[in-house]
Amino acid sequence: MLKGIAASHGIAIGRAYVIKEEKVDIKRIEITDIDNQKSRLRKAIETAADYLEELKKRTEEKLGADKGQIFEAHLFMLQDPEFINAIEMKIDDEKVAAEYAVNETVAQFVAIFESMDNDYMRERAADIKDVGGRLLNILLNRNNPSISEIDEECIVIVKDLTPSDTAQMDKEKVLGFVTEIGGRTSHSAIMARSLEIPAVVGVKGVTASINHGDMLIIDGENGEIIINPDKETISNYTKKKEEIAKTKKELELLKELESVTVDGRVVEIAGNIGNPQDAERVMANGGEGVGLFRTEFLYMSSDTLPTEEQQFTAYKEALLKMKGNPVIIRTLDIGGDKHLSYLPIDDEMNPFLGYRAIRLCLDRKDIFKTQLRALFRASVYGKLKIMFPMVSGYNEIMEAKKIVNEVKKELDNENIPYSHDVEIGIMIEIPSAAIMSDILAKEVDFFSIGTNDLIQYTIAVDRMNEKISYLYDPFNPAVLRLIKLVIDNAHRAGKWVGVCGEMAGDLRVIPLLLGMGLDEFSMSASSILKARKLIRSLNYEDTKKMVEDVLKLSSGDEVKKYIEENV
Amino acid sequence: MLKGIAASHGIAIGRAYVIKEEKVDIKRIEITDIDNQKSRLRKAIETAADYLEELKKRTEEKLGADKGQIFEAHLFMLQDPEFINAIEMKIDDEKVAAEYAVNETVAQFVAIFESMDNDYMRERAADIKDVGGRLLNILLNRNNPSISEIDEECIVIVKDLTPSDTAQMDKEKVLGFVTEIGGRTSHSAIMARSLEIPAVVGVKGVTASINHGDMLIIDGENGEIIINPDKETISNYTKKKEEIAKTKKELELLKELESVTVDGRVVEIAGNIGNPQDAERVMANGGEGVGLFRTEFLYMSSDTLPTEEQQFTAYKEALLKMKGNPVIIRTLDIGGDKHLSYLPIDDEMNPFLGYRAIRLCLDRKDIFKTQLRALFRASVYGKLKIMFPMVSGYNEIMEAKKIVNEVKKELDNENIPYSHDVEIGIMIEIPSAAIMSDILAKEVDFFSIGTNDLIQYTIAVDRMNEKISYLYDPFNPAVLRLIKLVIDNAHRAGKWVGVCGEMAGDLRVIPLLLGMGLDEFSMSASSILKARKLIRSLNYEDTKKMVEDVLKLSSGDEVKKYIEENV
Repeated sequence: MLKGIAASHGIAIGRAYVIKEEKVDIKRIEITDIDNQKSRLRKAIETAADYLEELKKRTEEKLGADKGQIFEAHLFMLQDPEFINAIEMKIDDEKVAAEYAVNETVAQFVAIFESMDNDYMRERAADIKDVGGRLLNILLNRNNPSISEIDEECIVIVKDLTPSDTAQMDKEKVLGFVTEIGGRTSHSAIMARSLEIPAVVGVKGVTASINHGDMLIIDGENGEIIINPDKETISNYTKKKEEIAKTKKELELLKELESVTVDGRVVEIAGNIGNPQDAERVMANGGEGVGLFRTEFLYMSSDTLPTEEQQFTAYKEALLKMKGNPVIIRTLDIGGDKHLSYLPIDDEMNPFLGYRAIRLCLDRKDIFKTQLRALFRASVYGKLKIMFPMVSGYNEIMEAKKIVNEVKKELDNENIPYSHDVEIGIMIEIPSAAIMSDILAKEVDFFSIGTNDLIQYTIAVDRMNEKISYLYDPFNPAVLRLIKLVIDNAHRAGKWVGVCGEMAGDLRVIPLLLGMGLDEFSMSASSILKARKLIRSLNYEDTKKMVEDVLKLSSGDEVKKYIEENV
Repeated sequence: MLKGIAASHGIAIGRAYVIKEEKVDIKRIEITDIDNQKSRLRKAIETAADYLEELKKRTEEKLGADKGQIFEAHLFMLQDPEFINAIEMKIDDEKVAAEYAVNETVAQFVAIFESMDNDYMRERAADIKDVGGRLLNILLNRNNPSISEIDEECIVIVKDLTPSDTAQMDKEKVLGFVTEIGGRTSHSAIMARSLEIPAVVGVKGVTASINHGDMLIIDGENGEIIINPDKETISNYTKKKEEIAKTKKELELLKELESVTVDGRVVEIAGNIGNPQDAERVMANGGEGVGLFRTEFLYMSSDTLPTEEQQFTAYKEALLKMKGNPVIIRTLDIGGDKHLSYLPIDDEMNPFLGYRAIRLCLDRKDIFKTQLRALFRASVYGKLKIMFPMVSGYNEIMEAKKIVNEVKKELDNENIPYSHDVEIGIMIEIPSAAIMSDILAKEVDFFSIGTNDLIQYTIAVDRMNEKISYLYDPFNPAVLRLIKLVIDNAHRAGKWVGVCGEMAGDLRVIPLLLGMGLDEFSMSASSILKARKLIRSLNYEDTKKMVEDVLKLSSGDEVKKYIEENV
């Protein structure tokens, strides 16, 4: 058995299809037929472009427009004069063959992009490798085993998957995959989850330790790979797989149903999204809205500030995709551990206690105003709610609201239409905001509790710090008491409260949040139906009593034990 | 008028005594009389030692035994074979004159010590410079204007003061001083406060901009220096000076009096100390105990862990100096921004949310146990209370108490006597501990609220971070509510509560803390009498009503305004 990083849930049982990396050493050979080499290059570019057009079309049909964009980007690269000229110049100046020129130029570009301190640019490096490999295969007339050509049911074992590899996967054939490289948030892992293909990544040396044709079981939940299992194991895992399929079917039935308890308490289950396309998955999983749209992708996927127009387009898209369901868009939460190359922040000793989110936005009103203008302009396309992150108290709300009013006045003056019913809320993720929630509730339309940060600040623990991350505990009764306080204070002021941190999707915690009177649970799309199933099985009055008991307990361990014994 | 850093309160009016640094360029000259040079060196060392013995005696008589220790350290350096041999070797090997050898060797040693990542070692660099300068003056037969020789009333203007310069000051003659170098915590600033000489430090270029004999006023409270003031200004400042003296006399009268409000509420005012000697100042200022003895000095002033014996001696000394008054000793609070060269901690992204204080002690039980043994052994010499820093919840208290019991059992087994009445308390400086204080109060004898950290965590603000330090606000109502909650919860469990953060000595906040029912206020020794004066002027019932009002306010600004209008 091998262990890796669980990248995409589900169980796959089948034969190994091992793709070994063919290491080709492209030697530098002096040539004299410069024109011939350049014409070979041009023909290879044409062939690659034709193939990419085909791939794009196929992917769009199979996976939707946004997934096809990968190939759009690759096509664009093949037309990029900076890239193509660099290859041609190499042929000219150094008198080398086309394949050598491609190989060298790609290596140079990859090195440059990889050294950039920007996720977007580093992703571009992967794209260039991908396109470069495609050109080389054509030039070398090399028929690398392509994932798109696999026509038998199998589990793919490969060192790494390029974005186009993953997009080409035929779900009917590729039952699952295992890679040597990558983590839970690598491109291939994200694609696997979106395709719902079980996957384990980051398994060092796996292409050597598994033979082509080996019988395999991969468990995408535990990150386990069982090689040549006995009959009993296969039978056990087949049962498990069937159960997963059965549960999935059961969950599907809940898509159109209400999130209501046995005794009639109705709550809302929404999804957290990181870009407008994700809204589709929220809808597909029966989400009743978007509880948190993180807008950082707009700022992080570019090397300049996004324009009002770019933002407007993204917000409009999300609102349209959600078809009138509420969409809570959070204003920029940069700083802390998230940095922008074009917006340098001085080194901070404790960035989590530093210049970030609303603190930055109130200091950089230009950035804040552009986002607010884009938000209000988009508000006519659906049910928009706006939320400010990292609010610590009263003054920040008043300042932010003042700027909102300035923006509205500007739009009025410009005769630009916007919705007059946009709710304005704040994240509750700093203890002072939770403690002052009675006062703050009067100034906003809703609260959304960001439990991840709230836990960190309340217990003074950075959960990324391995030495003390044991203290990070969603069951810590201090955190639970704060959440209860926030909900009570909001309800007293006639306002509603959501949770958009990880706690909202944690099946162990949902009964407590429900019992505290939480109105909205916002989580990853894949958790929505499981949460609905649980809520539909609970009795609201029972969970209220549970909360009463739990808030008297001394420690997170006691709370966990209580829940295990009582839910 | 010049502005600098206010280093020591009070007003001085007098003539400038400007000491300009004589820059002597000691050239390298090849010599042949090696033995002669070495004998010159030896004689200079003897002369320096004689002089230092004298200085030591004089300082001890004038300022107490601990201040004389500076010269003890210097004498020790003159006998240090590593230092002296290095100079002699230079004479031997390089055939240079004694003054050149001294100058070069001192520079080398200073560079080494200054580069060390350890405050103790960096202070040693200042001592070596001081001793080296003394040797050079003797060898060069140079009669530098010495501060000890000043025999007229004056205000000293100098680039920098060495430790021995400051120790030699005659308070009757040196009315105040101004330096170009140094901050509030530099050695000369600390000495000035201890001598009660008004001082302004960090005034760049001051030795050039003030002429010898100029009339000066220095205001050590605002860091202001007025050059050649007119008669009216002199008369104003003379009045101010007299008022300060009068207030001081009035305060002196409060030394033996109770800290009691007009309507009879008695509280305790204690002092915060950083080493056993500081206890003298607490007693001299009428302190009723030590509310916080920070033990880090033991760990930071050495390059190995302090032994049980060293710690025992220090704790015993503080207890004896406090003559039966309570002494709360806080166990090690290292980590965060305080590091030990011999106890490396991995780089942390957010050290304030990291591995520090009790978290470190529960992980390094060896270090913790040594300190607890020393504490309990010392407990028979006074009224010891022990307090754990950075407690976030129940589990940490239980673990720490378990280790306390292990230590007691060990001492029992070894027949070592210790007090059985040592109270065990915790710092409340993490929001989760404040929120859970009802539960935690049952497990400890007292709470001491560390307001500095509590503010930082509650508002998620690092006050050292200039970009957002405006959020650090002791008047923030969320912080005030937490403090009230802690006091109420403790009293309900029959336990007492102190505050040992800066809020305890803040005259604007004291009425609020009093009104909340705080039992003990612990502050710097110099604040004690002012706090007592204030408390003796307040009506407890009135302050209770103030608290009621204040806890309903929305922001720190509103609280500040309320206090300004109502106290």
